[in-house]
Amino acid sequence: MKSISFKYAATWLLGLCSLSLLAQKRPIDYVNPLIGTAKMGHTYPGATLPFGSIQLSPETDTLSYVMNGAYNKDVYRYCAGYQYDDPSIVGFSHTHFSGTGHSDLGDFLTMPTVGKLQLNPGTATNTAGGYRSKYDHAKEVVQANYYKAFLADYNITAELTATERVGMHQYTFPKSEDAHIILDLTAGLYNFEDKNVWTVVRVLNDSTITGYRQTQGWARNRTVYFAMTFSKPFKNYGMQSTDKTQVYKGFWRKFNQQENFPDLAAKNMKLHFDFATKEQEKVLVKLAISPVSQRNALANITHELNHWDFERVKQEGQEKWNQELKKIAIETLAEDDKTNFYTAMYHTFLGPTLYMDVNQEYKGLDQDIHRAENFKNYTTFSLWDTYRTLHPFFNLVQPSRNADMVSSMLAHYQQSTLHMLPIWSHYANDNWCMSGYHAVSVVADAILKGVYKGDPYAALEACIRTSTRRDYEGIGWYIDKGYIPSDYNNNSVSSTLEYAYDDWCIAQLAAKLGKMDIAETYNQRASNWKNVFDEKSGFMRSRLSDGTFKKDFDPLSTHGQGFIEGNAWNFSLFVPHNPQGLIQLKGGAKRMNSYLDSLFTMHLPDKFFAETEDITREGIIGNYVHGNEPSHHVAYLYNYTGAAWKTQERVRMILDKMYQARVDGLGGNDDCGQMSAWYLFSAMGFYPLAPGSLTYDIGSPLVKSANISLENGRTFAIKTQNQSVKNVYVSKVLLNGKLLVGNQLDHNDILAGGTLEYIMSAKPKK
Amino acid sequence: MKSISFKYAATWLLGLCSLSLLAQKRPIDYVNPLIGTAKMGHTYPGATLPFGSIQLSPETDTLSYVMNGAYNKDVYRYCAGYQYDDPSIVGFSHTHFSGTGHSDLGDFLTMPTVGKLQLNPGTATNTAGGYRSKYDHAKEVVQANYYKAFLADYNITAELTATERVGMHQYTFPKSEDAHIILDLTAGLYNFEDKNVWTVVRVLNDSTITGYRQTQGWARNRTVYFAMTFSKPFKNYGMQSTDKTQVYKGFWRKFNQQENFPDLAAKNMKLHFDFATKEQEKVLVKLAISPVSQRNALANITHELNHWDFERVKQEGQEKWNQELKKIAIETLAEDDKTNFYTAMYHTFLGPTLYMDVNQEYKGLDQDIHRAENFKNYTTFSLWDTYRTLHPFFNLVQPSRNADMVSSMLAHYQQSTLHMLPIWSHYANDNWCMSGYHAVSVVADAILKGVYKGDPYAALEACIRTSTRRDYEGIGWYIDKGYIPSDYNNNSVSSTLEYAYDDWCIAQLAAKLGKMDIAETYNQRASNWKNVFDEKSGFMRSRLSDGTFKKDFDPLSTHGQGFIEGNAWNFSLFVPHNPQGLIQLKGGAKRMNSYLDSLFTMHLPDKFFAETEDITREGIIGNYVHGNEPSHHVAYLYNYTGAAWKTQERVRMILDKMYQARVDGLGGNDDCGQMSAWYLFSAMGFYPLAPGSLTYDIGSPLVKSANISLENGRTFAIKTQNQSVKNVYVSKVLLNGKLLVGNQLDHNDILAGGTLEYIMSAKPKK
Repeated sequence: MKSISFKYAATWLLGLCSLSLLAQKRPIDYVNPLIGTAKMGHTYPGATLPFGSIQLSPETDTLSYVMNGAYNKDVYRYCAGYQYDDPSIVGFSHTHFSGTGHSDLGDFLTMPTVGKLQLNPGTATNTAGGYRSKYDHAKEVVQANYYKAFLADYNITAELTATERVGMHQYTFPKSEDAHIILDLTAGLYNFEDKNVWTVVRVLNDSTITGYRQTQGWARNRTVYFAMTFSKPFKNYGMQSTDKTQVYKGFWRKFNQQENFPDLAAKNMKLHFDFATKEQEKVLVKLAISPVSQRNALANITHELNHWDFERVKQEGQEKWNQELKKIAIETLAEDDKTNFYTAMYHTFLGPTLYMDVNQEYKGLDQDIHRAENFKNYTTFSLWDTYRTLHPFFNLVQPSRNADMVSSMLAHYQQSTLHMLPIWSHYANDNWCMSGYHAVSVVADAILKGVYKGDPYAALEACIRTSTRRDYEGIGWYIDKGYIPSDYNNNSVSSTLEYAYDDWCIAQLAAKLGKMDIAETYNQRASNWKNVFDEKSGFMRSRLSDGTFKKDFDPLSTHGQGFIEGNAWNFSLFVPHNPQGLIQLKGGAKRMNSYLDSLFTMHLPDKFFAETEDITREGIIGNYVHGNEPSHHVAYLYNYTGAAWKTQERVRMILDKMYQARVDGLGGNDDCGQMSAWYLFSAMGFYPLAPGSLTYDIGSPLVKSANISLENGRTFAIKTQNQSVKNVYVSKVLLNGKLLVGNQLDHNDILAGGTLEYIMSAKPKK
Repeated sequence: MKSISFKYAATWLLGLCSLSLLAQKRPIDYVNPLIGTAKMGHTYPGATLPFGSIQLSPETDTLSYVMNGAYNKDVYRYCAGYQYDDPSIVGFSHTHFSGTGHSDLGDFLTMPTVGKLQLNPGTATNTAGGYRSKYDHAKEVVQANYYKAFLADYNITAELTATERVGMHQYTFPKSEDAHIILDLTAGLYNFEDKNVWTVVRVLNDSTITGYRQTQGWARNRTVYFAMTFSKPFKNYGMQSTDKTQVYKGFWRKFNQQENFPDLAAKNMKLHFDFATKEQEKVLVKLAISPVSQRNALANITHELNHWDFERVKQEGQEKWNQELKKIAIETLAEDDKTNFYTAMYHTFLGPTLYMDVNQEYKGLDQDIHRAENFKNYTTFSLWDTYRTLHPFFNLVQPSRNADMVSSMLAHYQQSTLHMLPIWSHYANDNWCMSGYHAVSVVADAILKGVYKGDPYAALEACIRTSTRRDYEGIGWYIDKGYIPSDYNNNSVSSTLEYAYDDWCIAQLAAKLGKMDIAETYNQRASNWKNVFDEKSGFMRSRLSDGTFKKDFDPLSTHGQGFIEGNAWNFSLFVPHNPQGLIQLKGGAKRMNSYLDSLFTMHLPDKFFAETEDITREGIIGNYVHGNEPSHHVAYLYNYTGAAWKTQERVRMILDKMYQARVDGLGGNDDCGQMSAWYLFSAMGFYPLAPGSLTYDIGSPLVKSANISLENGRTFAIKTQNQSVKNVYVSKVLLNGKLLVGNQLDHNDILAGGTLEYIMSAKPKK
């Protein structure tokens, strides 16, 4: 053994200490899954892995869409099942969307109780009247892949963690002869009275059950299979069906299906599994889901989680999170900035979600079982939101996964009777939410950036067929007339604008592949935005089939004006692929400058705010609506009006105002990570104005530094000089030590590795 | 070339002529699928192959189980969808049970029309008010695997034929700009208001659609996938949903789902495909079903029926029928006897039905997809009926198929959470119809007769677990007390009797495998029939848990007396495995003789007939109820009372009275071929009194001769001397020329090939 001198030993000890200090604050330690769980963030606090199939999370209510015969608007609050301000937990279910403005899912609600068996949930004000329980945030622990709450009504501690396809519950019971674990198959999010189509449960032995839940809802035709195992055999089990009528009883009456009967099927049913527990006895549950079959769900447990060590599952999951999060190592001015950054990164990695069993089988849009050959299949593509910034962010830090997502979208296309790429891919369904055919943006961006390695010609073909589906949302009119007449379609203006951008993406892809005739056709279509521009008012505006603009024009209103989730003020800026052209049409840089200034500073009358969907008052700056996506590129448009310093100022303001390290810190729905992805790019000082292009627009970084570890093994380092809360202006940018000319950064310069250095200043560079 | 002498040429020509004469009357030519289609036979006249998955048949009504809020008893008439006396056809659907007393199925009702599109069926009295059409039997052609009708309302000739998994329609249209083919996915047999769980249709191109129909009914959880192709592209198509509410419309409102929209899903929908037709233009349709997936349904078409030659499909199918039917070549006294014989044989080969795709995949009882390795998977096991005579008949002439049926039942057992063999296997469900666990009889008989070649020990294990499922129909009581107390179970007596017989089968199997302890246990159980015998009344009788017999005993009533589909008079004879023991307990041969005589000759008061299920007045001889199965062995019991001549007389009488070559020629439900199988054995002069035994009881043959071509390549020839309508008595029987001593024939003597000769006489051998 070599002797080590004192000096080296001291250095080594010092190193250990600093390592240990670092270890106390890993990226994952900055993640706070509670951010966005109050008000309209619609995030969930529960346990999940990056892009995992399972989102095991507490629910504080599962309201019905219709209550007392009337539309229940409160149901919107529960898109993610959990509202921070609620006093009780109704149970833990296994599937959740993150940040959506609509929902579904909430499958397999599980709840431990003791005492008299109650199979109805009870109400927030009367938890004793049902299986729900009061709880206290003081005893709540919320981390990436770990959730803990104390269920006060039952003296039960509930802990949750997960692998990709298996949720693990650990319930610490008091001593009880009457301990229960309830599985309420009638519970779900955005529940309609008739949402459950069919449910099946098979009890294989005293600690294993399988089954499925089939629903019609936002996804018209969704089936989730499951397998559930218990660490302790139940001594008894039972079922209660809430079906109003059972169509055929017949010879099934031979059995008592309510008690210990293993072969159950009904439209609606609730189950209970009964135990006798000792003081502080832990009973664990694994619940795996599968898109394909009960057998696959069981195999997902066997292959993914073959032990009962809760702490190990939690630790291994958190290590996976940390591996993903540390792909960007940052220094910031404030600790909260790290919380915001890593929580945003956490939120961006919550979806799209893996939709494939360990044996690579998945259910396709055609409802048949497919095997994902050479890719992983994903679902939950909220593309109207996420094409803008989330998928470009993936092209930077998750290129392999994004390539698989493109493969998943192309598989969807292959399985589509409409021959269309997904609009909103949703568990082997398309829920057709929102507008545009923005999958083409994701496909084009991934190919142009070298991320997707599959057949680009087949991908181009998919884009073309999608964009020529004449009966979809006015595409026929759009092709024939160059715009969608507002007498035929409610979203005629926004769809025309979105199609024009999407068409530009197709043109970029076609040009890259040398298909110049196609590129020309689509470049032509890409200029269709001009056809809804009304020179007289200076706004994009509803146009009738006779070519005239629609009367009764109100540029502030979001209703009846031809726009979806936006008004003319905001949407008139939606030409991300041609800001120069837009500025020209709107009267030049100077007029555009004042237009933008007005947007950010004007007073939006309350009546228009009331119309604005999915955001809180805090989600709006003037008439700039950050909480809805159509404006996400707007702050960067000053780069094209000769006022880049205003981009820098606005971006820092938005980063500051719209993202706060609080439970109600998100000004609007996180929208499957799109809002968070905006934060991440902008906090690093650049933004993909028009995905499909290789350039990013320079903004103003919030971080002091950021090291991006690329999948190609290189590192792209972002540094700042003179960074401070006040020094929001960029006086110059150095790329690998050389002055960056202009306001754009090239994607290939990032891929090459290197250093981007921002010299910050308190003074704008006018 | 060799020269042929005139003499040889003449002989050869003569041979050709007689061949040609024979060719004019092949076995298939005697098949009349209309037999049993009037009154209670519940057979269907449509196109199908032996044991085929597809039963493509006309329906004359598809009534709803509930009409105007009340139970509709007429729905029972339509178990097979077709009643001969009805004046109109409502459409052609693809799945039917043959001869059942309950139903389900009737999937994918298809109907061609011209003129104004109507998507409701209309009524029998007002065909013009819907899509149904009047028709006339004079223009109807009904053959094995061929059905033809002229739809008078539309001037359309409809023809049907089938392969195993594909139904083929040929519609000859008049000239019309408004020709339609309707697919009514809301139609079905035994339709409850809420029977449809979900339906999906995907239009893949202008001549191909796929989809599925999921129902809850007699089968609690049944999904049939389909693929449908048209020989001519439709010019237009559309859908009408009759759903009262659509849970979520949302962004699906973007589409007009009613017209030419290819991606359809709803609880209830009806489709129409529109054509312009020329005068006498034929439009053909193929519709394949699959238990597994839409893709498999399409593959079933590709692999099984890749052309549009209707005549070829019909001919090839009829050749397959003829190959099966000619396994028994008979000579008879009358032509009608041949019709009855080959139609009975046709009916016995209608099920169980193949339940497996061309790629060998099938859906298991566990609702997962399985691959049938080394066997063909079958469903539709109406075992309470068919264990008695149908499966023994298969052991004789369809041993390979019966072995596969045993494999199918064992697969069902493997997939059962209750660990039970099927009771009534029904499209990946068990509908639990009727009583007993008679699968064990089929399993034991097939193993004892050397038919089933799989692991007999695993089969025995399945029988044992089935027979020890304590919570099934009083088995726990039966095990503990030796009978089922009537205070706990409605069918206490008949179930006790049936279990005792089934247990004897298990004992036989165990003994064969050298498991003498098991054999002893089950031989003990097999004597449990004695425990419900009331010496005082001389009948099997309801017994209470305190050991006393229940008061208010009426041996003629079928209600509330502890029997299912039978009364004490009939069921008191149900000890097929121990007729000697029964005779002894009932007071000896003489008293048994008079008991039997009374049974056949007594007057059954009308009130008791009214109680008797599933049969017409003609289905009863005295109080002997041939239309229900529990008496099927009864006529052969005289063999054990020293009055074999009465067996001979009764058998001939039953053959004569209960089976007639008329549309209403069946006295009761054919019960998946059980009634027909009784005919076939009895007409050949022997009968399997107790399946599980290798012996047959000698009766009196109806045929003049019968040559059975065995699968082992040998032939067993049945001959008669002095056969006539009056010579119903057997004076002696020669086996291979030697006198057969006693009234039993051994199965192995049949397998060895040889000749059985009956010497008939007008005088009984007393």
